Amino acid sequence: LEGCAPCGELAQRLAFLAEVDRLKSVLRASLLCDGSRRENSAEHSWHLALYALVMAPHARPAVEIGRVIRMLLIHDLVEIDTGDVPIHAQNGAAHHGTAQLQAEAEAAERIFGLLPAPQGVELRALWAEFEANETPDAVFAKSLDRAQPVMQNIASGGGTWAEYRVTYAQLVERVGLRIERGAPTLWHWLSESAQVYFTARTGG
Amino acid sequence: LEGCAPCGELAQRLAFLAEVDRLKSVLRASLLCDGSRRENSAEHSWHLALYALVMAPHARPAVEIGRVIRMLLIHDLVEIDTGDVPIHAQNGAAHHGTAQLQAEAEAAERIFGLLPAPQGVELRALWAEFEANETPDAVFAKSLDRAQPVMQNIASGGGTWAEYRVTYAQLVERVGLRIERGAPTLWHWLSESAQVYFTARTGG
Ligand SMILES: [Ca+2]
Repeated sequence: LEGCAPCGELAQRLAFLAEVDRLKSVLRASLLCDGSRRENSAEHSWHLALYALVMAPHARPAVEIGRVIRMLLIHDLVEIDTGDVPIHAQNGAAHHGTAQLQAEAEAAERIFGLLPAPQGVELRALWAEFEANETPDAVFAKSLDRAQPVMQNIASGGGTWAEYRVTYAQLVERVGLRIERGAPTLWHWLSESAQVYFTARTGG
Repeated sequence: LEGCAPCGELAQRLAFLAEVDRLKSVLRASLLCDGSRRENSAEHSWHLALYALVMAPHARPAVEIGRVIRMLLIHDLVEIDTGDVPIHAQNGAAHHGTAQLQAEAEAAERIFGLLPAPQGVELRALWAEFEANETPDAVFAKSLDRAQPVMQNIASGGGTWAEYRVTYAQLVERVGLRIERGAPTLWHWLSESAQVYFTARTGG
């Protein structure tokens, strides 16, 4: 798409759509449900958008599902520049360091800045809203982002829990409270399924 | 998720969300933009949903983008059972055989049937609307589904065009007319970029 700046807003949109293709090459810690390989952040984002669509009846009344879907489609784009930071890495401490937050803000500026200004500004604000995790839409989106890897771990027989030696108490603290905040019925179901795994692992 | 039928509608939703994980293992003919590997249908669906969001200003006025996004998120789920049929395979004839359409209808019944009835019926109807390609939302969605592989081929230096020995006239007939129907400005841009490739290849 070189040399296309003169083509205007359509060329900007297509340059953005070509750039985001790189999210398909960002690998996450989580495995696919069948355990065959690590998941990438693009297919993870698709899966989450489907989570929002399908779990809509379990969202709080103030939640607007269409906005949540848009938020989840773009929530990981910054990883094109920064990579994915696994939630259980560095004993749970890696996820919100200052350097990481700064790098993500710069990535958001670069990537959303590829778009024509009004849409780029709007989508960057939607990403910032997700990160701030305060509005009903963001809280629900974040709960799904935390729930999906739990589902993948249950399905694949432990997944990142085994790899990072996660305990049930750590799971509750690192992800359970957030899932419960946005989707309490979902956390109720997941926590029961997860306890089956953790009980079997500790032989208790 | 075995033994969870008694848990009711939440268990059904989670069984569906676990089942659709398999779309991440369905490989398409198209390459990633960097040519590094084939694209899978889950990340393709994510990319298309972003196409809809970003290309919204180029849709006809009757198009409702939120519906188009939902349509594109689920449009390839039947491939979990049937696999992807490349548009240029068998000299362009493989895509709409009767056996293929029958297999896709059965797959839709099985996969959307995993959901609680109202939502399963609704999403299956949305998939059928996409396939019928008649409503403004479906026509726009289908035009993006045809445009994205053109973009991937332009970016990766030919991709499936080289593999299947596609001519520019075949490209126009197999995908160009459909793209133009839903997104004329997009086809205008793509056809000019594609012609650069085809002209260089034929040495013309
Ligand atoms: Ca397809």
